[in-house]
Amino acid sequence: MKVEDVLARIDANLPQAIDRLFGLLRIPSISTDPAYAAHCREAADWLANELSALGFDASVRPTPGHPMVVAHSGGTGPRILFYGHYDVQPVDPIDQWHRDPFDPAIEETPNGPVIRARGASDDKGQLMTFIEACRAWKEVHGSLPPNLTIFLEGEEESGSPSLVPFLEKHREELQGRIALVCDTSMVAPGVPSIASQLRGMLKDEFTIHGPRVDLHSGHYGGPALNPLREMARIVASFHDDETGRVAVKDFYEGVHEVPAELLQQWENCGFDEREYLESIGMTMPHGEKGYSTLEQQWARPTLEINGMWGGYQGAGSKTVIPATAHCKLTCRLVGDMDPDKVRARIRAHVEARLSPDARVTWDQDLDGAPASVMDTSRPEFQAAREALSEEWGREAVFVGMGGSIPIVGMFKQLYGMESLLVGFANDDDAIHSPNEKYDVKSFHKGMRSWARILGRLNAD
Amino acid sequence: MKVEDVLARIDANLPQAIDRLFGLLRIPSISTDPAYAAHCREAADWLANELSALGFDASVRPTPGHPMVVAHSGGTGPRILFYGHYDVQPVDPIDQWHRDPFDPAIEETPNGPVIRARGASDDKGQLMTFIEACRAWKEVHGSLPPNLTIFLEGEEESGSPSLVPFLEKHREELQGRIALVCDTSMVAPGVPSIASQLRGMLKDEFTIHGPRVDLHSGHYGGPALNPLREMARIVASFHDDETGRVAVKDFYEGVHEVPAELLQQWENCGFDEREYLESIGMTMPHGEKGYSTLEQQWARPTLEINGMWGGYQGAGSKTVIPATAHCKLTCRLVGDMDPDKVRARIRAHVEARLSPDARVTWDQDLDGAPASVMDTSRPEFQAAREALSEEWGREAVFVGMGGSIPIVGMFKQLYGMESLLVGFANDDDAIHSPNEKYDVKSFHKGMRSWARILGRLNAD
Repeated sequence: MKVEDVLARIDANLPQAIDRLFGLLRIPSISTDPAYAAHCREAADWLANELSALGFDASVRPTPGHPMVVAHSGGTGPRILFYGHYDVQPVDPIDQWHRDPFDPAIEETPNGPVIRARGASDDKGQLMTFIEACRAWKEVHGSLPPNLTIFLEGEEESGSPSLVPFLEKHREELQGRIALVCDTSMVAPGVPSIASQLRGMLKDEFTIHGPRVDLHSGHYGGPALNPLREMARIVASFHDDETGRVAVKDFYEGVHEVPAELLQQWENCGFDEREYLESIGMTMPHGEKGYSTLEQQWARPTLEINGMWGGYQGAGSKTVIPATAHCKLTCRLVGDMDPDKVRARIRAHVEARLSPDARVTWDQDLDGAPASVMDTSRPEFQAAREALSEEWGREAVFVGMGGSIPIVGMFKQLYGMESLLVGFANDDDAIHSPNEKYDVKSFHKGMRSWARILGRLNAD
Repeated sequence: MKVEDVLARIDANLPQAIDRLFGLLRIPSISTDPAYAAHCREAADWLANELSALGFDASVRPTPGHPMVVAHSGGTGPRILFYGHYDVQPVDPIDQWHRDPFDPAIEETPNGPVIRARGASDDKGQLMTFIEACRAWKEVHGSLPPNLTIFLEGEEESGSPSLVPFLEKHREELQGRIALVCDTSMVAPGVPSIASQLRGMLKDEFTIHGPRVDLHSGHYGGPALNPLREMARIVASFHDDETGRVAVKDFYEGVHEVPAELLQQWENCGFDEREYLESIGMTMPHGEKGYSTLEQQWARPTLEINGMWGGYQGAGSKTVIPATAHCKLTCRLVGDMDPDKVRARIRAHVEARLSPDARVTWDQDLDGAPASVMDTSRPEFQAAREALSEEWGREAVFVGMGGSIPIVGMFKQLYGMESLLVGFANDDDAIHSPNEKYDVKSFHKGMRSWARILGRLNAD
């Protein structure tokens, strides 16, 4: 029973594993701020050294931005790729932290001990669950899992500008049968979760033009068309207020209902709807009527206004009819919705509703990406589900995600490679916020989960 | 025929009158910018000196802001008050001026010679038409018109903060049977105009609150209420798009149809609808259906959005559902509309339409003022109408104004005094804009107009 031995080794090594994670957490690898570039390099070096000491063929690869770390275990068989990122979010507002974000410590809380530091959860703690699982594996098996490649980037929190060129250039080294990604959370504490569908996104922006110039609302109010009123009318027309549905023609083309079996998993996944809504100040879900909160969040598309503005915004009053009004929007896409078609439909909707004397201009095409729906019938998904169910003592669930993880689309598009998204973060980890933490339980059982998954993936 | 003598004197003195106006125009009396405070004082001194030399008992009166100039002609009978302002607008954008705004000059144009300078039209040129008329009067009659008080302020372009306290304190010196105000324009070139109704104004501002904090539109888009969508829906509900009418309940209480006789005057007043609309980029009037452009501008109320904003306004995209959305609005009021009632009705309209989980907060009460409708049956209005018709060779018209002139309401409210608004500016004078000008014809015939009006007001 080699897996049991690996698990026992993980249990015994926990204090040292935490010490090693602390070493990584002490490096302030904030990727978005050029002042921390040397620290990003330091984190990449630290990881390459650890992986090299573990027996990986590890190297730090320069890019125009922060470096990549690539480490190969060697051996034959179809490659398994593991992806994580060593960069972290900025720490502002620093005065809301109750300790130095780069001086990690174990803190006791009512929900058990936590590791407190920037990056503890996103993503240093999570990626180290995988590396520590490899360490225990090596100690028991005498060698690393075969043909495993660990690929770590340092620009995830700053838009990953170097990622696609790097993936394109290093296909031979990185393409594999599956990508393991440890950068997500559990749907509820203690509920092992595999994210099997992510919403896609479409961005657009438009300006409504009315009068030639800003006008005085006394001299021209009445006869002059007001672009703010025009904007309000058009934005209001995007939705049917009765049903909560998007009222753009054919918007729902490519949207599929959630299969009954999956829906049942979701209904029993431990998601606390009331807590989720309460945490944002809502007493009810405000999306499409007839769909549960989880469906609205994971499986239904949206047309969301992210910014709208025009006219005077300063103190007091200004009697102006502005020449223009502006709107930024994003759609979350699901199923087979085509970003380009959706964009065209929204634009047609707006243009068809303009008053005489109003015109609209659109921003340079902003990007869009379709939804990601994983093929959960693949053996890796079944293996992971069984392994996680075993470790956590309850059925692992395939969950959705309301947001997008760009790397998933890139792996699929460039390499035709599915991503297996398994993470152990919790919703209260405060990633991107002050006082980020990672439960010691997440770290410990995360290592054990990966050991079990690696065991099953290498069982044949 | 003393009036003919006064007119002849005005004609003869035109070059010197222009020279004197240039002296006043050279003083950069920008009231809103503290750096120009000494120049405002200089303009007040200049005027008091001129008036004193003319035989007025003139003085410069300090206020917490810029000083007032008060000048009495002496004599008995019911007082006539003349009001004007010596301060001017800032000159930005200065690079769009084709000459130094404070180096006045006569320029020839296709429409005749103009005086080019900041303040040439608003209001130094206009107020000097009256002072020069008094000068010619004195030269012919040997004395000034009896019991005439000239009252000039230096804060009109910066909100007149000192005006009400000054009016309250100096009632004995300023209250009269009528206020003559020379700060308006003619409805069309060469058409003598008396503004007999001004729209009032009501200001308000509100914020719609949704989620507790700004949310990620991936994790929360769908279930979360978006205040921008809420704002668009509510702002769109302010109007009936079919009729163009404001859809707030009882909004039109106190609005009266324009009497047929006045409407006929308006229709024949020389207003060029096509040019007015074209100048702002419109091919049609966009106010209430069934009303002419002039009625929409002068005699119909509006609910205008002056500013609307929320969410992200920077470059690119941000996947945010903002916690709040904001709106600034003003209403133009007519007839007997009550600002306080209108405010309450708008607030009730908004509150009745809020979704669950949304709430609204209102700005501290911003001010409001009812419309001003003059009693044109008063003898001063008839006298002015006859005098102007004589001077300009066509029937003078009672016109409306879409904007408000606060001093009119103050005179009415504090002194029970009507204002006779006679001005000679033209719509292309570019007041508040680069390259402001005043037609020499306006200046010349303006002086002659006032001489005729003073003749009739002092005929008994």
